[in-house]
Amino acid sequence: MTALPEAEEVLRRLDGHGWTIAAAESLTGGLVAASLVDVPGASAHLRGAVVAYATDLKHSILGVDARLLADHGPVHPEVARQMAEGIRTITARDGVRTDVGVATTGIAGPESPDGQRVGTVHLGVSTPTGTQVVSLVLAGDRDAVRRESVRRALQAVVDAL
Amino acid sequence: MTALPEAEEVLRRLDGHGWTIAAAESLTGGLVAASLVDVPGASAHLRGAVVAYATDLKHSILGVDARLLADHGPVHPEVARQMAEGIRTITARDGVRTDVGVATTGIAGPESPDGQRVGTVHLGVSTPTGTQVVSLVLAGDRDAVRRESVRRALQAVVDAL
Repeated sequence: MTALPEAEEVLRRLDGHGWTIAAAESLTGGLVAASLVDVPGASAHLRGAVVAYATDLKHSILGVDARLLADHGPVHPEVARQMAEGIRTITARDGVRTDVGVATTGIAGPESPDGQRVGTVHLGVSTPTGTQVVSLVLAGDRDAVRRESVRRALQAVVDAL
Repeated sequence: MTALPEAEEVLRRLDGHGWTIAAAESLTGGLVAASLVDVPGASAHLRGAVVAYATDLKHSILGVDARLLADHGPVHPEVARQMAEGIRTITARDGVRTDVGVATTGIAGPESPDGQRVGTVHLGVSTPTGTQVVSLVLAGDRDAVRRESVRRALQAVVDAL
């Protein structure tokens, strides 16, 4: 698989900062991490990822507030923010830092479990200077929404670095 | 992305058993989980995944024995076994079972950090009836080794179910 240009740029910027990254993924299902692994030299900067596909794992592994999930469901800007911060926390152990966390949550379709519009996606990026969330409504089928979510998440990291 | 036939078969077998699955990935970097997400209806059976790309995360998140990692490195059949069992444990919370764990660890190349042969791959599959490990030496470049590892890991799940 040819590396995505956005993934290559993420790795270049991480290299410039001497920073590491980890991903917390829902609708993208591991593709953000896989896109980074596609770039030669990724192992110097990629710590790992959690794919919290089931909602309860967003709380139990990533530490997203259970009440927030109960009240608003998993597709919410604040969930993306907490996922991006949570993955930095749980992958920073034994004196090893994770400088950047990137998170995806959204509705790839074809069904929408909670009535939100298909293509609704929230992307979180957490860095040592703060956390931001980009919220989008993407067009296309399930596969297109997931692919575009990966690219947009990586671009959000580039923009934050 | 067209779903892999092996991924479709995994989902069919899980459906037959009424079972759930989670993945613990190293060299495949999220592609096992992503392959399952590609299959329509995956959300009924896929709990999630941990991409433990950095070695320390195999211990701190997945619970692989730290001494084993220190003595033998991350590319070892016993590491694959413990990853497959560990992902079942950490994704089974709040009364929700994870019935099947699938794990990948290996050397995609081009470098081999510990002198083992590039293409060495260990695949773990844990089910309620036990855990098995398949050890392989795969041919090809980095991308080919990763892709074939995904297919073989999914096939190992099919064989175990």
